[in-house]
Amino acid sequence: MSGVNEVRIGLLGLGTVGAGVVKILQTRRQMLEERAGARLSLAAIADADLTRPREGLDLGALPMVGDAARVLEDATIQIVVELIGGLEPARTFILRALAAGKHVVTANKALLAHHGAELYDEARRRGVSLGFEAAVAGGIPLIRAVKEGLVANRILSLAGIVNGTCNYILSKMTDEGLDFSLVLKEAQAHGYAEADPTLDIEGMDSAHKLQILVALAFRTFVDLKHIHTEGITRVTAHDIEYARELGYRIKLLAIAKATDHAGAGGVGVEARVHPTMIPAGSPLAAVAGVFNAVFLTGDAVGDLMFYGRGAGQLPTASAVWSDMLEIARRIGHGIPSLALELPSVGREPLPLTPMEAIRCCYYLRVMMQDRPGALSRVAGILGENDISIANVIQKGRGTREAVPVVMLTHEARERDMRTALAKIDRMRDVSTPTTMIRVEGGPA
Amino acid sequence: MSGVNEVRIGLLGLGTVGAGVVKILQTRRQMLEERAGARLSLAAIADADLTRPREGLDLGALPMVGDAARVLEDATIQIVVELIGGLEPARTFILRALAAGKHVVTANKALLAHHGAELYDEARRRGVSLGFEAAVAGGIPLIRAVKEGLVANRILSLAGIVNGTCNYILSKMTDEGLDFSLVLKEAQAHGYAEADPTLDIEGMDSAHKLQILVALAFRTFVDLKHIHTEGITRVTAHDIEYARELGYRIKLLAIAKATDHAGAGGVGVEARVHPTMIPAGSPLAAVAGVFNAVFLTGDAVGDLMFYGRGAGQLPTASAVWSDMLEIARRIGHGIPSLALELPSVGREPLPLTPMEAIRCCYYLRVMMQDRPGALSRVAGILGENDISIANVIQKGRGTREAVPVVMLTHEARERDMRTALAKIDRMRDVSTPTTMIRVEGGPA
Repeated sequence: MSGVNEVRIGLLGLGTVGAGVVKILQTRRQMLEERAGARLSLAAIADADLTRPREGLDLGALPMVGDAARVLEDATIQIVVELIGGLEPARTFILRALAAGKHVVTANKALLAHHGAELYDEARRRGVSLGFEAAVAGGIPLIRAVKEGLVANRILSLAGIVNGTCNYILSKMTDEGLDFSLVLKEAQAHGYAEADPTLDIEGMDSAHKLQILVALAFRTFVDLKHIHTEGITRVTAHDIEYARELGYRIKLLAIAKATDHAGAGGVGVEARVHPTMIPAGSPLAAVAGVFNAVFLTGDAVGDLMFYGRGAGQLPTASAVWSDMLEIARRIGHGIPSLALELPSVGREPLPLTPMEAIRCCYYLRVMMQDRPGALSRVAGILGENDISIANVIQKGRGTREAVPVVMLTHEARERDMRTALAKIDRMRDVSTPTTMIRVEGGPA
Repeated sequence: MSGVNEVRIGLLGLGTVGAGVVKILQTRRQMLEERAGARLSLAAIADADLTRPREGLDLGALPMVGDAARVLEDATIQIVVELIGGLEPARTFILRALAAGKHVVTANKALLAHHGAELYDEARRRGVSLGFEAAVAGGIPLIRAVKEGLVANRILSLAGIVNGTCNYILSKMTDEGLDFSLVLKEAQAHGYAEADPTLDIEGMDSAHKLQILVALAFRTFVDLKHIHTEGITRVTAHDIEYARELGYRIKLLAIAKATDHAGAGGVGVEARVHPTMIPAGSPLAAVAGVFNAVFLTGDAVGDLMFYGRGAGQLPTASAVWSDMLEIARRIGHGIPSLALELPSVGREPLPLTPMEAIRCCYYLRVMMQDRPGALSRVAGILGENDISIANVIQKGRGTREAVPVVMLTHEARERDMRTALAKIDRMRDVSTPTTMIRVEGGPA
């Protein structure tokens, strides 16, 4: 491809995804260059560890450097791919690359969730691209779909299974009736969960992705620390089984909705991550194992779902390359980056609905002594707080042990539910804190 | 938005989708113009019928013209949206628009399936865009995903439910155990099937969409008339029920796969549309009613599925607008159209695997007299043709009527299956032609 433009790429971080990016170039160079309309040169790969072997790669044949500055200060490098992860030094490196007029591609969801506004703004100011297709839902071309495919829509709501570790654990608990801790250990043994799984199982990783999706879909920035975030550690095999009896599945969902709001513009947004009961027949309920899926509703397009691998070496590298090839094509054709393509920080953010003000249906499992009048007292407390019961299952009656009373409520306000729960858990007949799981009518 | 570029749009055809395109502009003008970065003017709408009322539109307030030439010859119009449908005069109109240097957006799948190569080529030659996101799977941003999101992948296979009418009918037959003709009448009454449903129920509409998808995903042109196409008219409630007993669902799938091929390059493609049995647990099996979904496997990204509304006024108009806004942004920023974005006609097409050479598993329902040895003769014929049986269900034994013998085979070659079927149907004990439905292991 002589006589064709060359696009020079610098890689920061040669971990799992970085190695995938290199592998795809090595095995598919001709196809990638054809599709980019440019020659693709991997000019430098910076990693602190220059010796650890990377499966399938010959390190000696790669342009390895120990210092990121060798990438950031190389004036011939046009695209910097940040695959270090974490907040620092990734943030500083990206800012330096943007300041030097380089395009940046990143898969760093934590960084975008914390500092996206700053980074989008800097890219816009410098007139360069900042690609992050790989940051949410791995290989699924979701960012592109929301940014471009749904550009004529107001997004009304989205609900996503965006953490493969949690979905694997919940799927396995559902299929085999096993407890959380047992399945977590098994997931760690299989490499589906990290040695320290906190970020995944406590829901933070899902919250990161939700923050990014909200910026794109609702064109507003919500502060990560204001996203109500609950993980899956307290979901029990019992609750999964009761959910099934009621026709539901339990998934960890990242949920955002456009809301009516009294303030200026009349529009707000709610954003939350928590275990959610959804109807067994809804498309998201069928998403099993490590797969991710995002369900979206637009005002014109109606319901959409995107499904695929949310993580993994080659799926994530596939998304990184989709951004790189788009940028390479632009470089090749002298096309400028468009400010419109990044979430805007210019306007007033939409008000975030406080968690206490959201409304949904609820699943409750109250553990109580089966004494005359106990259930009616629980129902009374719910009623006093404007919560009506849709469905009750009472298990194992007639024993002297505490027995589970499982309830589904009609739609209620979170604040009222919390007030009611505090009161229920103070009842003499109630032995342990009541389990509460939110129910979404489901996207179906 | 004064001082901003104006983009002038001409519309050919004010039917259901055309009216949707106008409605979205009327209700969301400010948002669309912000996202386009340009003022959007609907300069002229050509339709032969200037008087028929269009629900929700005030025709008197629209720039209606009776003659398409008024759009095609208006030098100020930059984007022509073709929503007439059918082959002619749509083809001629699009060629004239392209020749005049106008960008074109179309939802016309039949036209692209028949004359796509000519149209893509002309757009490339004239240096203008030809957008067709709306032509396949309605509102689902699938074209964009394949063209850009999966650009770093070789697509290995795709399987799509791309006709909402057929999926509605099969879903209803499955849920309610009803016969095809009854459900078709009901679908017509509800507006889910046309008065003349031939194009849908005979599979031609699905073949059109498959031809377009193959051009994008496999970068080759297959001749529409070489795509093996079977509709759903011969699927019976009985077959659906037997499929269910075996753990399968029956869907009309448009299937394409990369194949090994003896010729140059070693790669071929197979493309076919037919009722298909897929495992009940596979993601496509859960796609119900009028919804569409396309399941794709890429060499890097693995399995993906896109799900949404494949038709309807606003979903389709949403896709039309996604193309228009992309073109409008480019016009606003003086960005050229890229030849790389259209299926290429330059290279030698990949060889299409003849239908007789494909391999899959088969479902057979043989209607035969329950006489000693009859089943063993059928098994013998299959065996002689290299077909082995995986599973048999024999129904209603001991009557003098012909009874169904239902079989699932292991993977076999289509040619062998046809030979075997011809022989089985000549058996004295076999009363009516044997029903054969292809089985795909399913994308799961």
